[in-house]
Amino acid sequence: MKTKFRKLMLALTLTLLSVSLSACSIAERSGKPGLLVIQEQGSFAVGGTVITNPGTFDPLKMTPEGQTFHGDHAYVFYQIPENPRKLPLVLWHGFGQFSKTWETTPDGREGYQNLFLRRGYEVYVLDQPRRGNAGRSTQPATLAPVPDEQRWFNIFRIGVWPEYFSGVQFSRASEALGQYFRQLAPDTGPIDIDVNSDAVAALFDKIGPGILVTHSHSGGMGWQTVIKSPDIRAVVSYEPGSNFVFPEGDVPAPKPSSGGTLEGVPVPLSDFMKLTKIPIVIYYGDYIPELPSKNPGQDMWRIRLEMARLWADAVNRHGGDATVVHLPEIGVRGNTHLPFSDLNNLEIANLMSDWLAKKGLD
Amino acid sequence: MKTKFRKLMLALTLTLLSVSLSACSIAERSGKPGLLVIQEQGSFAVGGTVITNPGTFDPLKMTPEGQTFHGDHAYVFYQIPENPRKLPLVLWHGFGQFSKTWETTPDGREGYQNLFLRRGYEVYVLDQPRRGNAGRSTQPATLAPVPDEQRWFNIFRIGVWPEYFSGVQFSRASEALGQYFRQLAPDTGPIDIDVNSDAVAALFDKIGPGILVTHSHSGGMGWQTVIKSPDIRAVVSYEPGSNFVFPEGDVPAPKPSSGGTLEGVPVPLSDFMKLTKIPIVIYYGDYIPELPSKNPGQDMWRIRLEMARLWADAVNRHGGDATVVHLPEIGVRGNTHLPFSDLNNLEIANLMSDWLAKKGLD
Repeated sequence: MKTKFRKLMLALTLTLLSVSLSACSIAERSGKPGLLVIQEQGSFAVGGTVITNPGTFDPLKMTPEGQTFHGDHAYVFYQIPENPRKLPLVLWHGFGQFSKTWETTPDGREGYQNLFLRRGYEVYVLDQPRRGNAGRSTQPATLAPVPDEQRWFNIFRIGVWPEYFSGVQFSRASEALGQYFRQLAPDTGPIDIDVNSDAVAALFDKIGPGILVTHSHSGGMGWQTVIKSPDIRAVVSYEPGSNFVFPEGDVPAPKPSSGGTLEGVPVPLSDFMKLTKIPIVIYYGDYIPELPSKNPGQDMWRIRLEMARLWADAVNRHGGDATVVHLPEIGVRGNTHLPFSDLNNLEIANLMSDWLAKKGLD
Repeated sequence: MKTKFRKLMLALTLTLLSVSLSACSIAERSGKPGLLVIQEQGSFAVGGTVITNPGTFDPLKMTPEGQTFHGDHAYVFYQIPENPRKLPLVLWHGFGQFSKTWETTPDGREGYQNLFLRRGYEVYVLDQPRRGNAGRSTQPATLAPVPDEQRWFNIFRIGVWPEYFSGVQFSRASEALGQYFRQLAPDTGPIDIDVNSDAVAALFDKIGPGILVTHSHSGGMGWQTVIKSPDIRAVVSYEPGSNFVFPEGDVPAPKPSSGGTLEGVPVPLSDFMKLTKIPIVIYYGDYIPELPSKNPGQDMWRIRLEMARLWADAVNRHGGDATVVHLPEIGVRGNTHLPFSDLNNLEIANLMSDWLAKKGLD
């Protein structure tokens, strides 16, 4: 009876513990896709400058004399999941975009912000100085609502307006296109590569070592940020669009296209060498022609992919570790200029996860 | 023995269930302050309009002919905790501010976004049209970096620059003041009460019944939104600053102050009556003088508090349920114009929680 009693007790204990663990697992990041367990989240401004107006502030008149103006900072929203991986991800949007790039996709699915939180990464999404929530600029700007969305439809390679590319990984729902266009935001001051890379370097200085993920225009600004910050341990760059830096005296010839000419940017060799010390991967999507095309929305990417390859070759010639992945060449088709929010963005995220794992960065 | 065995089993079961519940509670909103359990989070644009330019789009030239421009939407970031309460909170910033108002406080503590997620509310933080992440405006704007921060220091009642008010609930750390100034953002188009209240009404139309939380300039726009949306079930308004609506023919005399004159806004009685159908609470902080003051940064709030009281009286005379709470009168001292991010914001949040509970809205 005593033995039977003990066995019963043990069975009961194990059953209840099992129920207990199963109930708890709903709260774990890897348990149920529906739940995100966040250890800490918040927002802050980082970097930037202060204008101090001469004179003495008069509290009765409150005119600009003697007042200050803080501007040109980046705005950052961050989330730290439970038991985070060792290196955070810093997600930097491209031209005309803001943090929304990485949030909910135009058709309402999860973007990189959520996907990589679920994979255990700390995620920092930023608005670069003079864009979105970092709108306070120390330089003036004149804004006008110039209709431009069909141009972005073409340049972001969804298709040639009003036709979608065959097989394009973009929802045909009109609501998706509306959300896509509404994720544009104006520049509230001139775009300044130094101001922007300073602010993102200040972010890394604040948070410590991490991985920089760039898109399009932030690609080139990302190289400048690596030169400024020793805390960037890797770069994942989606469709970098300009400002490929090369050692002085070793800049390739400018590349003409029907969408404009792209030039490399010379930097001192000692700066360039900083880009050879960390692993870098570059991804380009689909619908980039191999031969010159009359359509500027596609042709501008032909020369960028070519320049990216020359750039990676230069980095690797100097002992670096840069890879260019043209997605259709590995069988991943239909991607636009924003692969990370395309319909197959889980697959695109998996490629990034695998690369991070391969480089021992996860 | 059988009875003893049953009693033991029962005790064991209860003990293990208790352990199980206690282990699970780390995942619950009320359990451990360090963890937020989010069922869903994301962002979207809502409301707004579309400009369609005449002509035909030419993909080779990409000039504005035949192109569109989506603008004047609100931008919304939302989080739904596990097992949310029945009504979501919609948090709407004030003049010169954006969603940051509700996020991390200037001195790095949790703002209403996190505090009310922890209390089980779905939280929607928005940027109104033509502000922050909702920067795409259908109207032009000219932006200039006019030094204005000492003015805000005074108007937001931290003190009279450079002196802090005695006992003010605001950190003396210079970093806190820097973050505070950097949570300002410019208007990327003219402020338009109709555009803004339309967008927020569209948000409620999308998400259904909820509670609107306003601050300062959004206070008055909030009344307009209640008139437009049957889904707003209550309003919590911090320091509403303008656009107090009264029935036509029953508008109080304008109120002069050293910080300008405040006028009530006439609306049809049928519109005004909509404000009498839901509970409304208004909070004002400290350092608001009872008698006229030469300091405009304080005196402008004296007339607003007076107008708010006249307004609540008018609502209640018509059968409504509006309450004005002047925080020092209930013994809560030191609050600025932004009580929800002041050093005592937990106490301020508790007042709101208690009010929601009293009104059966939690």
